[in-house]
Amino acid sequence: MVEKKDIVFVKFGGAAITFKDIPRKPNIEVIEQMSKEISDIYDEYRLLIGNGGGSFAHPIASQYKVQEGLNVCGKEGFSKTHDAAKDLNDLVVESLIKQNIPVLSFQTSAATIAQGGEIQKMFTHPIKNMLNNDFIPVIYGDVVVDEINGCTIVSTEQIFKYLGREFKPKRIIIATDVDGVYTSDPKKGNAELISKITQDNIKDVVEGLGGSLETDVTGGMAHKVEELYNLSKLNICVEIINGLKENYLKRAIKGEEGLGTSISVYSDD
Amino acid sequence: MVEKKDIVFVKFGGAAITFKDIPRKPNIEVIEQMSKEISDIYDEYRLLIGNGGGSFAHPIASQYKVQEGLNVCGKEGFSKTHDAAKDLNDLVVESLIKQNIPVLSFQTSAATIAQGGEIQKMFTHPIKNMLNNDFIPVIYGDVVVDEINGCTIVSTEQIFKYLGREFKPKRIIIATDVDGVYTSDPKKGNAELISKITQDNIKDVVEGLGGSLETDVTGGMAHKVEELYNLSKLNICVEIINGLKENYLKRAIKGEEGLGTSISVYSDD
Repeated sequence: MVEKKDIVFVKFGGAAITFKDIPRKPNIEVIEQMSKEISDIYDEYRLLIGNGGGSFAHPIASQYKVQEGLNVCGKEGFSKTHDAAKDLNDLVVESLIKQNIPVLSFQTSAATIAQGGEIQKMFTHPIKNMLNNDFIPVIYGDVVVDEINGCTIVSTEQIFKYLGREFKPKRIIIATDVDGVYTSDPKKGNAELISKITQDNIKDVVEGLGGSLETDVTGGMAHKVEELYNLSKLNICVEIINGLKENYLKRAIKGEEGLGTSISVYSDD
Repeated sequence: MVEKKDIVFVKFGGAAITFKDIPRKPNIEVIEQMSKEISDIYDEYRLLIGNGGGSFAHPIASQYKVQEGLNVCGKEGFSKTHDAAKDLNDLVVESLIKQNIPVLSFQTSAATIAQGGEIQKMFTHPIKNMLNNDFIPVIYGDVVVDEINGCTIVSTEQIFKYLGREFKPKRIIIATDVDGVYTSDPKKGNAELISKITQDNIKDVVEGLGGSLETDVTGGMAHKVEELYNLSKLNICVEIINGLKENYLKRAIKGEEGLGTSISVYSDD
Protein backbone atom coordinates (compact mmCIF):
# COMPACT_ATOMS: atom_id res chain seq x y z
CA MET A 1 0.00 0.00 0.00
CA VAL A 2 1.35 3.43 -0.95
CA GLU A 3 1.11 5.89 1.92
CA LYS A 4 0.17 9.49 1.42
CA LYS A 5 3.05 11.74 0.49
CA ASP A 6 5.22 8.84 -0.52
CA ILE A 7 7.53 9.76 -3.36
CA VAL A 8 6.51 8.18 -6.67
CA PHE A 9 8.44 8.54 -9.93
CA VAL A 10 6.30 8.47 -13.07
CA LYS A 11 7.54 8.10 -16.62
CA PHE A 12 5.51 9.35 -19.54
CA GLY A 13 7.11 6.93 -22.01
CA GLY A 14 8.12 8.29 -25.39
CA ALA A 15 6.28 5.42 -27.08
CA ALA A 16 3.04 6.48 -25.39
CA ILE A 17 3.22 10.25 -25.82
CA THR A 18 4.50 10.42 -29.40
CA PHE A 19 3.82 8.61 -32.66
CA LYS A 20 6.98 6.58 -32.91
CA ASP A 21 7.19 6.48 -36.68
CA ILE A 22 6.39 10.13 -37.37
CA PRO A 23 9.18 12.54 -36.39
CA ARG A 24 8.11 15.22 -33.91
CA LYS A 25 4.50 14.10 -33.79
CA PRO A 26 3.21 14.18 -30.21
CA ASN A 27 0.19 12.15 -29.14
CA ILE A 28 -1.56 15.09 -27.53
CA GLU A 29 -4.59 13.01 -26.62
CA VAL A 30 -2.48 10.64 -24.52
CA ILE A 31 -0.47 13.47 -22.94
CA GLU A 32 -3.73 15.17 -21.92
CA GLN A 33 -5.28 11.96 -20.63
CA MET A 34 -2.26 11.19 -18.50
CA SER A 35 -2.19 14.80 -17.25
CA LYS A 36 -5.82 14.50 -16.18
CA GLU A 37 -5.10 11.28 -14.32
CA ILE A 38 -2.23 13.01 -12.55
CA SER A 39 -4.48 15.94 -11.65
CA ASP A 40 -6.91 13.57 -9.89
CA ILE A 41 -4.34 12.31 -7.43
CA TYR A 42 -1.18 14.44 -7.41
CA ASP A 43 -1.82 16.00 -4.02
CA GLU A 44 -1.82 12.61 -2.31
CA TYR A 45 1.82 11.95 -3.24
CA ARG A 46 5.10 13.65 -3.94
CA LEU A 47 5.53 13.01 -7.64
CA LEU A 48 8.50 13.36 -9.93
CA ILE A 49 7.62 13.00 -13.59
CA GLY A 50 10.01 12.19 -16.42
CA ASN A 51 9.26 12.04 -20.08
CA GLY A 52 11.03 10.04 -22.76
CA GLY A 53 12.18 11.38 -26.12
CA GLY A 54 9.96 9.36 -28.44
CA SER A 55 9.87 10.56 -32.01
CA PHE A 56 11.24 13.95 -30.95
CA ALA A 57 14.73 13.20 -29.66
CA HIS A 58 15.43 9.68 -30.89
CA PRO A 59 15.44 10.15 -34.68
CA ILE A 60 17.74 13.17 -34.45
CA ALA A 61 20.02 11.54 -31.87
CA SER A 62 20.32 8.53 -34.11
CA GLN A 63 20.81 10.58 -37.29
CA TYR A 64 23.72 12.48 -35.74
CA LYS A 65 24.97 9.43 -33.75
CA VAL A 66 24.96 11.45 -30.55
CA GLN A 67 25.62 8.30 -28.54
CA GLU A 68 29.06 8.05 -30.16
CA GLY A 69 30.15 11.35 -28.68
CA LEU A 70 30.80 14.94 -29.64
CA ASN A 71 33.52 14.14 -32.20
CA VAL A 72 30.96 12.18 -34.19
CA CYS A 73 27.73 14.14 -33.71
CA GLY A 74 29.25 17.60 -33.66
CA LYS A 75 27.87 20.64 -31.92
CA GLU A 76 24.90 20.68 -34.28
CA GLY A 77 23.91 17.15 -33.26
CA PHE A 78 24.15 18.03 -29.56
CA SER A 79 22.22 21.26 -29.96
CA LYS A 80 19.45 19.86 -32.16
CA THR A 81 18.93 16.75 -30.05
CA HIS A 82 18.57 18.83 -26.92
CA ASP A 83 16.19 21.14 -28.73
CA ALA A 84 13.95 18.24 -29.76
CA ALA A 85 13.97 16.74 -26.25
CA LYS A 86 13.09 20.11 -24.76
CA ASP A 87 10.24 20.66 -27.22
CA LEU A 88 8.51 17.46 -26.14
CA ASN A 89 9.06 18.29 -22.47
CA ASP A 90 7.48 21.69 -23.13
CA LEU A 91 4.34 19.99 -24.45
CA VAL A 92 4.14 17.71 -21.41
CA VAL A 93 4.64 20.59 -19.00
CA GLU A 94 2.07 22.77 -20.79
CA SER A 95 -0.47 19.99 -20.60
CA LEU A 96 0.13 19.51 -16.87
CA ILE A 97 -0.06 23.27 -16.22
CA LYS A 98 -3.38 23.36 -18.08
CA GLN A 99 -4.64 20.99 -15.39
CA ASN A 100 -3.39 23.41 -12.71
CA ILE A 101 -0.79 20.94 -11.51
CA PRO A 102 2.19 22.69 -9.84
CA VAL A 103 4.92 21.43 -12.14
CA LEU A 104 8.36 22.79 -12.88
CA SER A 105 10.34 21.67 -15.88
CA PHE A 106 13.86 20.60 -15.00
CA GLN A 107 16.46 20.67 -17.78
CA THR A 108 18.52 17.54 -17.29
CA SER A 109 21.50 18.84 -19.28
CA ALA A 110 21.77 21.98 -17.15
CA ALA A 111 22.32 19.92 -14.02
CA THR A 112 24.04 16.73 -15.13
CA ILE A 113 27.52 15.54 -16.02
CA ALA A 114 28.08 12.08 -17.47
CA GLN A 115 31.18 9.97 -17.75
CA GLY A 116 31.35 7.25 -20.39
CA GLY A 117 27.59 7.23 -20.89
CA GLU A 118 26.63 7.03 -17.22
CA ILE A 119 25.49 9.90 -15.01
CA GLN A 120 28.48 10.89 -12.93
CA LYS A 121 26.95 13.83 -11.06
CA MET A 122 23.54 15.47 -11.00
CA PHE A 123 22.78 18.66 -9.08
CA THR A 124 19.70 17.52 -7.17
CA HIS A 125 19.39 20.33 -4.65
CA PRO A 126 16.56 22.16 -6.50
CA ILE A 127 14.66 18.90 -7.08
CA LYS A 128 14.85 18.01 -3.40
CA ASN A 129 13.52 21.42 -2.44
CA MET A 130 10.76 21.20 -5.05
CA LEU A 131 9.61 17.80 -3.80
CA ASN A 132 9.55 19.09 -0.23
CA ASN A 133 7.43 22.05 -1.32
CA ASP A 134 4.93 19.84 -3.17
CA PHE A 135 6.09 20.90 -6.60
CA ILE A 136 6.29 18.25 -9.27
CA PRO A 137 9.62 18.41 -11.12
CA VAL A 138 9.37 17.25 -14.73
CA ILE A 139 12.71 15.94 -15.96
CA TYR A 140 13.42 14.38 -19.35
CA GLY A 141 15.82 12.18 -21.23
CA ASP A 142 18.35 14.58 -22.71
CA VAL A 143 21.78 14.93 -24.29
CA VAL A 144 24.27 15.91 -21.60
CA VAL A 145 27.94 16.80 -21.32
CA ASP A 146 30.10 13.67 -20.99
CA GLU A 147 33.58 14.10 -19.59
CA ILE A 148 34.96 11.28 -21.70
CA ASN A 149 32.94 11.41 -24.92
CA GLY A 150 32.03 15.09 -25.05
CA CYS A 151 28.35 14.27 -24.93
CA THR A 152 25.98 11.37 -24.42
CA ILE A 153 22.27 10.64 -24.15
CA VAL A 154 20.87 9.89 -20.73
CA SER A 155 17.53 8.14 -20.63
CA THR A 156 14.74 8.79 -18.16
CA GLU A 157 15.54 5.37 -16.66
CA GLN A 158 19.14 6.42 -16.02
CA ILE A 159 17.93 9.62 -14.37
CA PHE A 160 15.44 7.64 -12.26
CA LYS A 161 18.25 5.31 -11.23
CA TYR A 162 20.41 8.23 -10.10
CA LEU A 163 17.56 10.03 -8.35
CA GLY A 164 16.18 6.78 -6.98
CA ARG A 165 19.29 6.29 -4.87
CA GLU A 166 18.89 9.74 -3.35
CA PHE A 167 15.12 10.09 -3.02
CA LYS A 168 14.16 6.45 -2.46
CA PRO A 169 10.72 6.55 -4.12
CA LYS A 170 8.20 3.97 -2.97
CA ARG A 171 7.36 3.07 -6.52
CA ILE A 172 8.23 3.86 -10.10
CA ILE A 173 5.55 3.75 -12.78
CA ILE A 174 6.58 3.45 -16.40
CA ALA A 175 3.71 4.24 -18.78
CA THR A 176 4.33 2.90 -22.26
CA ASP A 177 2.22 1.93 -25.30
CA VAL A 178 1.96 -1.81 -24.60
CA ASP A 179 0.71 -3.74 -21.59
CA GLY A 180 4.13 -4.35 -20.03
CA VAL A 181 7.26 -6.40 -20.76
CA TYR A 182 6.81 -9.28 -23.20
CA THR A 183 8.89 -12.34 -23.92
CA SER A 184 9.64 -10.80 -27.33
CA ASP A 185 8.37 -7.91 -29.46
CA PRO A 186 4.61 -7.83 -28.77
CA LYS A 187 3.98 -6.27 -32.15
CA LYS A 188 5.45 -9.30 -33.93
CA GLY A 189 3.12 -12.01 -32.58
CA ASN A 190 3.72 -14.99 -30.32
CA ALA A 191 4.89 -12.75 -27.47
CA GLU A 192 3.65 -13.34 -23.96
CA LEU A 193 3.20 -10.68 -21.29
CA ILE A 194 5.47 -11.24 -18.30
CA SER A 195 3.47 -10.25 -15.26
CA LYS A 196 6.33 -10.39 -12.79
CA ILE A 197 10.09 -10.01 -13.12
CA THR A 198 12.18 -11.11 -10.15
CA GLN A 199 15.62 -12.54 -9.53
CA ASP A 200 14.22 -15.89 -10.67
CA ASN A 201 13.59 -14.84 -14.27
CA ILE A 202 15.45 -11.57 -14.90
CA LYS A 203 18.26 -13.31 -16.83
CA ASP A 204 15.85 -15.16 -19.12
CA VAL A 205 13.77 -12.03 -19.69
CA VAL A 206 16.72 -9.88 -20.69
CA GLU A 207 18.15 -12.59 -22.95
CA GLY A 208 14.75 -13.11 -24.53
CA LEU A 209 14.64 -9.40 -25.29
CA GLY A 210 17.90 -9.66 -27.19
CA GLY A 211 20.36 -8.41 -24.64
CA SER A 212 22.44 -10.05 -22.01
CA LEU A 213 22.99 -9.00 -18.43
CA GLU A 214 26.65 -8.37 -19.13
CA THR A 215 26.88 -6.56 -22.43
CA ASP A 216 23.75 -4.64 -23.28
CA VAL A 217 24.57 -0.96 -23.07
CA THR A 218 23.00 0.09 -26.33
CA GLY A 219 19.54 0.86 -25.05
CA GLY A 220 16.32 -0.78 -26.12
CA MET A 221 13.90 -2.69 -23.93
CA ALA A 222 16.48 -5.17 -22.59
CA HIS A 223 18.60 -2.30 -21.29
CA LYS A 224 15.60 -0.55 -19.77
CA VAL A 225 14.43 -3.69 -18.00
CA GLU A 226 17.91 -4.13 -16.57
CA GLU A 227 18.02 -0.54 -15.33
CA LEU A 228 14.59 -0.96 -13.75
CA TYR A 229 15.53 -4.29 -12.20
CA ASN A 230 18.59 -2.66 -10.66
CA LEU A 231 16.33 0.06 -9.29
CA SER A 232 14.06 -2.50 -7.68
CA LYS A 233 17.06 -3.65 -5.65
CA LEU A 234 16.68 -0.39 -3.72
CA ASN A 235 13.38 -1.72 -2.42
CA ILE A 236 11.41 0.24 -5.02
CA CYS A 237 8.40 -1.38 -6.70
CA VAL A 238 8.58 -0.86 -10.44
CA GLU A 239 5.42 -1.16 -12.51
CA ILE A 240 5.37 -1.06 -16.30
CA ILE A 241 1.87 -0.33 -17.53
CA ASN A 242 -0.04 0.65 -20.63
CA GLY A 243 -0.46 4.41 -20.48
CA LEU A 244 -2.97 4.33 -23.32
CA LYS A 245 -5.48 2.45 -21.16
CA GLU A 246 -7.66 4.88 -19.27
CA ASN A 247 -6.87 5.23 -15.55
CA TYR A 248 -4.11 2.62 -15.58
CA LEU A 249 -1.55 5.31 -14.80
CA LYS A 250 -3.66 6.67 -11.97
CA ARG A 251 -4.38 3.24 -10.53
CA ALA A 252 -0.72 2.27 -10.68
CA ILE A 253 0.36 5.47 -8.91
CA LYS A 254 -2.22 4.73 -6.22
CA GLY A 255 -0.58 1.37 -5.60
CA GLU A 256 -2.50 -1.17 -7.63
CA GLU A 257 -0.34 -4.04 -8.81
CA GLY A 258 -0.88 -6.54 -11.59
CA LEU A 259 -1.89 -3.98 -14.22
CA GLY A 260 1.12 -4.82 -16.38
CA THR A 261 4.57 -6.03 -15.44
CA SER A 262 5.84 -5.70 -11.88
CA ILE A 263 9.57 -5.74 -11.29
CA SER A 264 10.95 -6.55 -7.89
CA VAL A 265 14.04 -8.46 -6.85
CA TYR A 266 12.24 -10.99 -4.71
CA SER A 267 9.39 -13.26 -5.72
CA ASP A 268 6.17 -13.04 -3.71
CA ASP A 269 6.45 -14.71 -0.31
CA MET B 1 42.49 44.61 -26.45
CA VAL B 2 40.43 41.43 -26.33
CA GLU B 3 42.46 38.40 -27.32
CA LYS B 4 41.04 35.59 -29.37
CA LYS B 5 39.23 32.99 -27.33
CA ASP B 6 38.88 35.29 -24.37
CA ILE B 7 35.69 34.67 -22.47
CA VAL B 8 33.11 37.42 -22.97
CA PHE B 9 29.71 37.52 -21.23
CA VAL B 10 26.96 39.17 -23.26
CA LYS B 11 23.56 40.22 -21.98
CA PHE B 12 20.62 40.60 -24.30
CA GLY B 13 18.80 43.07 -22.06
CA GLY B 14 15.10 42.57 -21.52
CA ALA B 15 14.50 46.23 -22.38
CA ALA B 16 16.12 45.71 -25.79
CA ILE B 17 14.61 42.37 -26.79
CA THR B 18 11.02 42.94 -25.65
CA PHE B 19 8.51 45.78 -25.76
CA LYS B 20 8.55 46.75 -22.11
CA ASP B 21 4.98 47.94 -21.89
CA ILE B 22 3.33 45.09 -23.78
CA PRO B 23 3.30 41.78 -21.86
CA ARG B 24 5.00 38.92 -23.68
CA LYS B 25 5.77 40.94 -26.79
CA PRO B 26 9.29 40.14 -28.04
CA ASN B 27 11.18 42.54 -30.27
CA ILE B 28 12.05 39.91 -32.83
CA GLU B 29 13.80 42.38 -35.07
CA VAL B 30 16.29 43.28 -32.34
CA ILE B 31 16.77 39.64 -31.28
CA GLU B 32 17.56 38.76 -34.89
CA GLN B 33 19.86 41.72 -35.38
CA MET B 34 21.84 40.88 -32.25
CA SER B 35 21.97 37.21 -33.29
CA LYS B 36 23.42 38.21 -36.67
CA GLU B 37 26.06 40.33 -34.97
CA ILE B 38 26.97 37.39 -32.76
CA SER B 39 27.19 35.11 -35.80
CA ASP B 40 29.79 37.43 -37.39
CA ILE B 41 32.26 37.07 -34.55
CA TYR B 42 31.34 34.22 -32.22
CA ASP B 43 34.17 31.94 -33.29
CA GLU B 44 36.78 34.48 -32.21
CA TYR B 45 35.73 34.33 -28.57
CA ARG B 46 34.24 32.04 -25.96
CA LEU B 47 30.88 33.62 -25.38
CA LEU B 48 28.31 33.13 -22.68
CA ILE B 49 25.01 34.83 -23.42
CA GLY B 50 22.34 35.73 -20.89
CA ASN B 51 18.96 37.23 -21.57
CA GLY B 52 16.82 39.32 -19.29
CA GLY B 53 13.13 38.81 -18.62
CA GLY B 54 11.73 42.01 -20.12
CA SER B 55 7.98 42.05 -20.59
CA PHE B 56 7.87 38.25 -20.32
CA ALA B 57 8.99 37.50 -16.77
CA HIS B 58 8.75 40.87 -15.02
CA PRO B 59 5.00 41.62 -15.16
CA ILE B 60 4.14 38.13 -13.90
CA ALA B 61 6.84 38.16 -11.22
CA SER B 62 5.56 41.48 -10.00
CA GLN B 63 1.88 40.47 -10.19
CA TYR B 64 2.55 37.42 -8.00
CA LYS B 65 5.20 39.20 -5.88
CA VAL B 66 7.66 36.39 -6.49
CA GLN B 67 10.44 38.42 -4.90
CA GLU B 68 8.63 38.15 -1.55
CA GLY B 69 8.98 34.39 -1.51
CA LEU B 70 6.95 31.25 -1.99
CA ASN B 71 4.48 31.97 0.82
CA VAL B 72 3.39 35.10 -1.01
CA CYS B 73 3.60 34.13 -4.69
CA GLY B 74 2.50 30.53 -4.31
CA LYS B 75 3.39 27.63 -6.55
CA GLU B 76 1.44 29.19 -9.40
CA GLY B 77 3.52 32.37 -9.25
CA PHE B 78 6.76 30.36 -9.29
CA SER B 79 5.63 28.12 -12.11
CA LYS B 80 4.21 30.87 -14.34
CA THR B 81 7.18 33.20 -13.86
CA HIS B 82 9.59 30.45 -14.84
CA ASP B 83 7.42 29.60 -17.81
CA ALA B 84 7.50 33.20 -19.05
CA ALA B 85 11.27 33.47 -18.56
CA LYS B 86 11.79 30.22 -20.44
CA ASP B 87 9.58 31.31 -23.33
CA LEU B 88 11.71 34.39 -23.99
CA ASN B 89 14.90 32.35 -23.69
CA ASP B 90 13.43 29.94 -26.25
CA LEU B 91 12.99 32.80 -28.73
CA VAL B 92 16.55 33.99 -28.19
CA VAL B 93 17.96 30.49 -28.59
CA GLU B 94 15.88 29.81 -31.71
CA SER B 95 17.11 33.03 -33.28
CA LEU B 96 20.74 32.14 -32.55
CA ILE B 97 20.29 28.60 -33.87
CA LYS B 98 18.80 30.05 -37.07
CA GLN B 99 22.19 31.75 -37.55
CA ASN B 100 23.92 28.36 -37.09
CA ILE B 101 25.51 29.48 -33.86
CA PRO B 102 26.32 26.51 -31.56
CA VAL B 103 24.22 27.55 -28.58
CA LEU B 104 22.79 25.53 -25.72
CA SER B 105 20.07 26.88 -23.50
CA PHE B 106 20.87 26.54 -19.82
CA GLN B 107 17.95 26.59 -17.38
CA THR B 108 19.14 28.67 -14.46
CA SER B 109 16.57 27.25 -12.03
CA ALA B 110 17.65 23.66 -12.72
CA ALA B 111 21.17 24.40 -11.57
CA THR B 112 20.87 27.14 -8.95
CA ILE B 113 20.05 27.47 -5.26
CA ALA B 114 19.62 30.89 -3.69
CA GLN B 115 19.66 31.99 -0.09
CA GLY B 116 17.93 35.20 0.91
CA GLY B 117 17.82 36.48 -2.66
CA GLU B 118 21.47 35.79 -3.50
CA ILE B 119 22.84 32.86 -5.45
CA GLN B 120 24.24 30.44 -2.93
CA LYS B 121 25.31 27.66 -5.29
CA MET B 122 25.22 27.15 -9.02
CA PHE B 123 26.19 23.89 -10.73
CA THR B 124 28.63 25.23 -13.30
CA HIS B 125 30.25 22.02 -14.46
CA PRO B 126 28.23 21.75 -17.70
CA ILE B 127 28.81 25.45 -18.53
CA LYS B 128 32.55 25.05 -18.05
CA ASN B 129 32.61 22.07 -20.36
CA MET B 130 30.44 23.87 -22.94
CA LEU B 131 32.74 26.90 -22.98
CA ASN B 132 35.77 24.66 -23.42
CA ASN B 133 34.08 22.92 -26.34
CA ASP B 134 33.20 26.22 -28.04
CA PHE B 135 29.52 25.98 -27.28
CA ILE B 136 27.73 29.14 -26.28
CA PRO B 137 25.61 28.59 -23.16
CA VAL B 138 22.54 30.83 -23.07
CA ILE B 139 21.42 31.41 -19.48
CA TYR B 140 18.59 33.67 -18.34
CA GLY B 141 17.20 35.53 -15.39
CA ASP B 142 14.85 33.07 -13.72
CA VAL B 143 12.91 32.25 -10.58
CA VAL B 144 14.94 29.80 -8.49
CA VAL B 145 14.60 27.83 -5.28
CA ASP B 146 15.61 29.94 -2.26
CA GLU B 147 16.48 28.11 0.92
CA ILE B 148 15.15 30.91 3.10
CA ASN B 149 12.24 32.38 1.13
CA GLY B 150 11.15 29.34 -0.87
CA CYS B 151 11.85 31.13 -4.13
CA THR B 152 13.41 34.29 -5.49
CA ILE B 153 14.23 35.94 -8.78
CA VAL B 154 17.85 35.97 -9.87
CA SER B 155 18.79 38.51 -12.50
CA THR B 156 21.21 37.96 -15.36
CA GLU B 157 23.54 40.38 -13.54
CA GLN B 158 23.50 38.18 -10.43
CA ILE B 159 24.27 35.13 -12.55
CA PHE B 160 27.08 37.00 -14.31
CA LYS B 161 28.48 37.96 -10.91
CA TYR B 162 28.49 34.34 -9.76
CA LEU B 163 29.90 33.00 -13.02
CA GLY B 164 32.31 35.94 -13.31
CA ARG B 165 34.15 34.81 -10.22
CA GLU B 166 34.62 31.35 -11.65
CA PHE B 167 35.19 32.03 -15.35
CA LYS B 168 36.89 35.44 -15.15
CA PRO B 169 35.60 36.86 -18.43
CA LYS B 170 37.69 39.59 -20.04
CA ARG B 171 34.64 41.74 -20.55
CA ILE B 172 30.93 41.87 -19.98
CA ILE B 173 28.67 43.58 -22.51
CA ILE B 174 25.20 44.66 -21.45
CA ALA B 175 23.00 45.51 -24.44
CA THR B 176 20.00 47.60 -23.46
CA ASP B 177 17.61 50.04 -25.17
CA VAL B 178 19.37 53.27 -24.24
CA ASP B 179 22.93 54.48 -24.82
CA GLY B 180 24.24 53.56 -21.38
CA VAL B 181 23.83 54.70 -17.77
CA TYR B 182 22.37 58.18 -17.32
CA THR B 183 22.35 60.58 -14.40
CA SER B 184 18.59 59.99 -14.17
CA ASP B 185 15.86 58.38 -16.27
CA PRO B 186 16.89 59.21 -19.87
CA LYS B 187 13.29 59.00 -20.98
CA LYS B 188 12.30 61.86 -18.66
CA GLY B 189 14.57 64.60 -20.05
CA ASN B 190 17.53 66.43 -18.53
CA ALA B 191 19.50 63.22 -18.09
CA GLU B 192 23.13 63.03 -19.07
CA LEU B 193 24.96 59.94 -20.30
CA ILE B 194 27.73 58.85 -17.95
CA SER B 195 30.55 57.62 -20.14
CA LYS B 196 32.66 56.16 -17.36
CA ILE B 197 31.85 54.81 -13.91
CA THR B 198 34.81 54.28 -11.57
CA GLN B 199 35.48 54.37 -7.85
CA ASP B 200 35.48 58.16 -8.14
CA ASN B 201 31.82 58.50 -9.10
CA ILE B 202 30.08 55.18 -8.34
CA LYS B 203 28.47 56.51 -5.16
CA ASP B 204 27.07 59.60 -6.86
CA VAL B 205 25.83 57.56 -9.82
CA VAL B 206 23.96 55.04 -7.69
CA GLU B 207 22.45 57.75 -5.50
CA GLY B 208 21.42 59.72 -8.57
CA LEU B 209 19.65 56.64 -9.85
CA GLY B 210 17.60 56.47 -6.68
CA GLY B 211 19.43 53.84 -4.72
CA SER B 212 22.24 53.97 -2.24
CA LEU B 213 25.29 51.77 -2.00
CA GLU B 214 24.11 50.37 1.29
CA THR B 215 20.43 49.71 0.98
CA ASP B 216 19.35 49.09 -2.58
CA VAL B 217 18.44 45.43 -2.96
CA THR B 218 15.18 45.93 -4.77
CA GLY B 219 16.46 45.83 -8.33
CA GLY B 220 16.22 48.56 -10.90
CA MET B 221 19.09 50.35 -12.61
CA ALA B 222 20.81 51.42 -9.39
CA HIS B 223 21.03 47.80 -8.27
CA LYS B 224 22.27 46.66 -11.65
CA VAL B 225 24.96 49.31 -11.78
CA GLU B 226 26.11 48.24 -8.32
CA GLU B 227 26.26 44.59 -9.33
CA LEU B 228 28.22 45.50 -12.45
CA TYR B 229 30.55 47.74 -10.52
CA ASN B 230 31.26 44.91 -8.11
CA LEU B 231 32.00 42.69 -11.10
CA SER B 232 34.48 45.19 -12.46
CA LYS B 233 36.47 44.72 -9.24
CA LEU B 234 37.40 41.30 -10.60
CA ASN B 235 39.33 43.06 -13.34
CA ILE B 236 36.50 42.66 -15.81
CA CYS B 237 35.66 45.52 -18.19
CA VAL B 238 31.93 46.13 -18.20
CA GLU B 239 30.35 47.98 -21.12
CA ILE B 240 26.72 49.04 -21.21
CA ILE B 241 25.69 49.81 -24.77
CA ASN B 242 22.63 50.43 -26.89
CA GLY B 243 21.75 47.10 -28.45
CA LEU B 244 19.31 48.76 -30.85
CA LYS B 245 22.15 50.55 -32.63
CA GLU B 246 23.47 48.41 -35.43
CA ASN B 247 26.82 46.72 -34.79
CA TYR B 248 27.29 48.29 -31.36
CA LEU B 249 27.00 44.86 -29.75
CA LYS B 250 29.49 43.37 -32.17
CA ARG B 251 31.93 46.26 -31.78
CA ALA B 252 31.72 46.10 -28.00
CA ILE B 253 32.37 42.36 -27.98
CA LYS B 254 35.40 42.95 -30.19
CA GLY B 255 36.79 45.31 -27.57
CA GLU B 256 35.79 48.81 -28.62
CA GLU B 257 35.29 51.14 -25.69
CA GLY B 258 33.41 54.42 -25.43
CA LEU B 259 30.27 53.20 -27.20
CA GLY B 260 28.14 53.74 -24.10
CA THR B 261 29.05 53.53 -20.41
CA SER B 262 32.23 51.78 -19.30
CA ILE B 263 32.43 50.54 -15.74
CA SER B 264 35.77 49.84 -14.15
CA VAL B 265 37.01 50.32 -10.63
CA TYR B 266 39.95 52.50 -11.55
CA SER B 267 39.95 55.72 -13.54
CA ASP B 268 42.10 55.83 -16.68
CA ASP B 269 45.79 56.20 -15.94
